[in-house]
Amino acid sequence: MRIITLTTDFGTRDWFVGTMKAVILGILPRAKVVDITHEIPPGDIRAGAFALMASCRYFPRGTVHVAVVDPGVGSQRQAIAVQTARRFFVGPDNGVLSWGLALEKIKTIRLLENRQYFLQPVSRTFHGRDVFAPVAAHLSRGLSASRLGRELKDFVRVPWPQTTKQRGEVQGEIVHIDRFGNAITNIPEEMVSCERVGLCEMLGERKVRCALAEFYGAVPVNRPVAVIGSSGLLEIAVNGGSAAQQFGLKIADKVTVRMKS
Amino acid sequence: MRIITLTTDFGTRDWFVGTMKAVILGILPRAKVVDITHEIPPGDIRAGAFALMASCRYFPRGTVHVAVVDPGVGSQRQAIAVQTARRFFVGPDNGVLSWGLALEKIKTIRLLENRQYFLQPVSRTFHGRDVFAPVAAHLSRGLSASRLGRELKDFVRVPWPQTTKQRGEVQGEIVHIDRFGNAITNIPEEMVSCERVGLCEMLGERKVRCALAEFYGAVPVNRPVAVIGSSGLLEIAVNGGSAAQQFGLKIADKVTVRMKS
Amino acid sequence: MRIITLTTDFGTRDWFVGTMKAVILGILPRAKVVDITHEIPPGDIRAGAFALMASCRYFPRGTVHVAVVDPGVGSQRQAIAVQTARRFFVGPDNGVLSWGLALEKIKTIRLLENRQYFLQPVSRTFHGRDVFAPVAAHLSRGLSASRLGRELKDFVRVPWPQTTKQRGEVQGEIVHIDRFGNAITNIPEEMVSCERVGLCEMLGERKVRCALAEFYGAVPVNRPVAVIGSSGLLEIAVNGGSAAQQFGLKIADKVTVRMKS
Repeated sequence: MRIITLTTDFGTRDWFVGTMKAVILGILPRAKVVDITHEIPPGDIRAGAFALMASCRYFPRGTVHVAVVDPGVGSQRQAIAVQTARRFFVGPDNGVLSWGLALEKIKTIRLLENRQYFLQPVSRTFHGRDVFAPVAAHLSRGLSASRLGRELKDFVRVPWPQTTKQRGEVQGEIVHIDRFGNAITNIPEEMVSCERVGLCEMLGERKVRCALAEFYGAVPVNRPVAVIGSSGLLEIAVNGGSAAQQFGLKIADKVTVRMKS
Repeated sequence: MRIITLTTDFGTRDWFVGTMKAVILGILPRAKVVDITHEIPPGDIRAGAFALMASCRYFPRGTVHVAVVDPGVGSQRQAIAVQTARRFFVGPDNGVLSWGLALEKIKTIRLLENRQYFLQPVSRTFHGRDVFAPVAAHLSRGLSASRLGRELKDFVRVPWPQTTKQRGEVQGEIVHIDRFGNAITNIPEEMVSCERVGLCEMLGERKVRCALAEFYGAVPVNRPVAVIGSSGLLEIAVNGGSAAQQFGLKIADKVTVRMKS
Repeated sequence: MRIITLTTDFGTRDWFVGTMKAVILGILPRAKVVDITHEIPPGDIRAGAFALMASCRYFPRGTVHVAVVDPGVGSQRQAIAVQTARRFFVGPDNGVLSWGLALEKIKTIRLLENRQYFLQPVSRTFHGRDVFAPVAAHLSRGLSASRLGRELKDFVRVPWPQTTKQRGEVQGEIVHIDRFGNAITNIPEEMVSCERVGLCEMLGERKVRCALAEFYGAVPVNRPVAVIGSSGLLEIAVNGGSAAQQFGLKIADKVTVRMKS
């Protein structure tokens, strides 16, 4: 079981991801490399953090998760590996790992400073290939995290946008727009349920009002609907269409859920 | 030999495909997962059916083909697995499997109802991850299809557009536009041949008239040409260019092949 | 160790790459297929050659590199396999392999003519599936290159654009624009160094002038900077932005590096 996942903003037009795999396979020929996505918008740390959070829990124990959204590559930002009770996370210490780590039991946080586990020479612009890929391969191969470098007390966190609840209203915001144009919010399933929800309202370019239903097809085609999405978060969709396009929804747009009185 | 193929409309921007692979590898660590494409236009069942049909026959015996273009996810549409003499097909019973199945010898069609082979809990919006991926992994691992659920008599079919032949003319239509802008028709190689074909005519925004040749480079650069494409179907191409763009060709546009008299 | 890499212009919308993998796995079930990229612009042999050159050296010994950018497919252009001291290259003999081969010690160049190692029947439009994929799988499996066909004396080369150096100026040009909008030049690290470089100047739609620095973040956000990129070539970037977009840079635009006097 030698799974290494990759979440990056490298795109798939260039050779960047292929060379990361080259380095991994050179160190660990049996590695199974799984792409989460390489289409994180360039430098968008939050988008990378969200993709990692939404996917990592489905992987088997011992998986090594590499996330490289790294606008500060080459500068003084640190590179880390975090071992938790179930898995490893490797990447720049800029918050991209922090949402994936939020639900994990941390065992050790290590600075990547032992150059013995890097590709030589280390470029100043592509630590995905020269630092993170080889370190991930060594961890997957069984290297003790303690060999990588000094222990850190904490890692950098990206704040998760908070929800509020008062007077029968839950307030949240859009945290991701997916491929289908579904607008995923930060409101967890535990805060809403079909029996209790009256109306969901999203405020984008145009206001969307819709009911909470069990699945997309519960409303007619081209009509909006709120559902609990596959990550356990409330999302606004359009049956057979794109909610983001139809209503001009964007990340950080406000969402209000009115409970039944 | 543990090949599982994936054909979906999930795109590669999100974590959807990565989590399907997570679930598969959790059940069957030796699985070889091959992406056919994840860029089926959202909800386009015919496009998914075509990609599956065009690719499945090249895979070794025992391959499990998963196709998830599933606008009705969570509703009453059924989920099925079909075992044929050579391979397995897993997906929603909405026609997406039907073109791939057209040339196969069906052994059994099973309803996916045994929740023991699903990820728990099953979401209402992502059966790719929660139902189809784990069922595929179990089948690839050797599970008898009979364990999945009741046998069905038939599966839902998407009608394949028919060709007609009369008075020295073959009539068909465009069924796919590929990455290069080649317009692939439903006219099989058996109905046309260089010796017999006079002129091919496609009616898009602008009429295209061209001869049938052996390969793209048989005509000058930027000129249209009809060839028998790699799936054994007549296609209209532009040497070094995009026929779809140059002539405004779209899926369902009519195609006429005039035989020599 | 059975790595086969793929570099093509097939895109990922269609089933083309999936069927190449089907053919490879049918011949060599243990193969590890690594995608370099499939988004080479259609028919752009130089872009394919560049991606192959930038990635191949990171793969372990014995890797088989397949590159298919093949506008002349089906015509008289030849198909070749080249064995070097460390690896194999397979593709059309149109120059797409030539930059990857530039630093290699050639052992033998073979014409692909032994149809025993092709998929049957061979289509006229998709040699990626029918010729290059199966030949690569056979080579990876241990087939002697001499079995593929007659030995050739040379392969077709795409000329690498030359740099010039005179009167304290290095002249070169842009050879690639990457996903981030970084403009990679043909000027190697050996010709420039931070101590010696005064000013870099790129002439696109708008002239860019910037200093050479160690990494992107060495200049303020949205400001241009020249760095030695991860392939050892000088590149012009914008910290946190796209140099190509901001300055209208294109492939073949001229670049001048002024040395300190």
